[in-house]
Amino acid sequence: MPGLIQSIERSSAVLRLLAAGPGRLRVKEVADALALPKSTAHSILRTLEHVGFVEQDPNTARYRLGRGLLDLGADGQDGLIDLNELRGRALNWADALAARSGEEVRIGALRDDRVVVVHHVFRPDDSAQSLDTGRLLPTHATALGQVLLAYNAPAVEAAVRSGLEAYTRGTLTAPAALARSLSATRERGWALSVEEWEAGRAGLAAPVRSFGGLVVGAIGISGPVERLCDTRRQARPAQVEHVLTTARAISRDLAAS
Amino acid sequence: MPGLIQSIERSSAVLRLLAAGPGRLRVKEVADALALPKSTAHSILRTLEHVGFVEQDPNTARYRLGRGLLDLGADGQDGLIDLNELRGRALNWADALAARSGEEVRIGALRDDRVVVVHHVFRPDDSAQSLDTGRLLPTHATALGQVLLAYNAPAVEAAVRSGLEAYTRGTLTAPAALARSLSATRERGWALSVEEWEAGRAGLAAPVRSFGGLVVGAIGISGPVERLCDTRRQARPAQVEHVLTTARAISRDLAAS
Repeated sequence: MPGLIQSIERSSAVLRLLAAGPGRLRVKEVADALALPKSTAHSILRTLEHVGFVEQDPNTARYRLGRGLLDLGADGQDGLIDLNELRGRALNWADALAARSGEEVRIGALRDDRVVVVHHVFRPDDSAQSLDTGRLLPTHATALGQVLLAYNAPAVEAAVRSGLEAYTRGTLTAPAALARSLSATRERGWALSVEEWEAGRAGLAAPVRSFGGLVVGAIGISGPVERLCDTRRQARPAQVEHVLTTARAISRDLAAS
Repeated sequence: MPGLIQSIERSSAVLRLLAAGPGRLRVKEVADALALPKSTAHSILRTLEHVGFVEQDPNTARYRLGRGLLDLGADGQDGLIDLNELRGRALNWADALAARSGEEVRIGALRDDRVVVVHHVFRPDDSAQSLDTGRLLPTHATALGQVLLAYNAPAVEAAVRSGLEAYTRGTLTAPAALARSLSATRERGWALSVEEWEAGRAGLAAPVRSFGGLVVGAIGISGPVERLCDTRRQARPAQVEHVLTTARAISRDLAAS
């Protein structure tokens, strides 16, 4: 059938093959079953292993279905990624971002239609700050949340359904205004929120992607409006660059893990 | 990571995305979430739909996870394909094969380590014959079974474990001899069994493949040795061609359905 993607058909055939019968097969057995060169079967199996859909027994080198596939039916939004893995991959990058930007850094992911802060690095000065890790933030009023909404349509619907609460006069409370803002976020690849959550403060955030481009989290900086924005309240290009570079580095790490 | 297949990574990201949250998304929403062109997201979704891993709601055009994916964890060998679908696709082709070859035709699939005959067409003459549909045949002693074993390593292990019973003096009862025969079957793409199941009779069979090359069944003819084989007990090329052409036609139908 025209327009179908052969490697996806083959990978689903491999999964069905592993699901049938005892389900522990060598590379050559998979290649034989599907009449593929062994190298092709190996690439398919390695990719499926990488995304968690198959597992290889280290002792026998045989493949079987992976937990990632079997759990698909049961997952909620938390299932997009193991938050501990996201945090672990992002720790050092978050420290570096705080040092370069001079601002505090947060990493967030969606949980129950809110942003859960999975990691927080203080601004690199000696000012008094309180640790935000574990705190839940509104999605529509923060840059972190807007990034997560921009790539997750059901989360937008949930946010609109539960009411877009106004925290400041700048909060986007009209669904159409929020939709326009999220569309702009997708187009440029980062979000800026200026006095939408707290007066005098702004946030700047970008998506963290796992394999296949799946957005699994967001990383961003926040601070006084005048430090993140120029006099026309536009994001300072250097800060945007710091955030984007960091988000891409974490994404590379995640996609390669 | 080098050697990984991008479209498989992307398709697994689509599946995770659909598994997260309410899980009914438009093509554009999937494209936005993964930062893909809409046409690419559409090709991935259509392929996943084709293999039964996602389903599209005909009213809303939104996609959700498909039964084929959710059932993977629960399937046995019967789960490789719906046998009614195999039978339905093969009916007319089986009739044509019987007419061309002048022999009776059987379509078989693996069930509980035996070959279940899912369809049987009588030899096109007026001789008395008994309908075999639903009958279970041994795998190692029939051409249909040898084709199914050739592409299914766990089934070979099961056959060897349960003992390779001798039906004639020609039955392959030594595991090494069976392995050599199956290897030859894979190499040429068809199986010939001469007096391994019944004295005086031979069988000739080829694999039926679904998407991704997955072998889901076998189709073959059987009859007196002298009609299927030449004087050196080699398969008659014209009969091999009839069987192969038919098996490929059914495979094309199945892969396109």
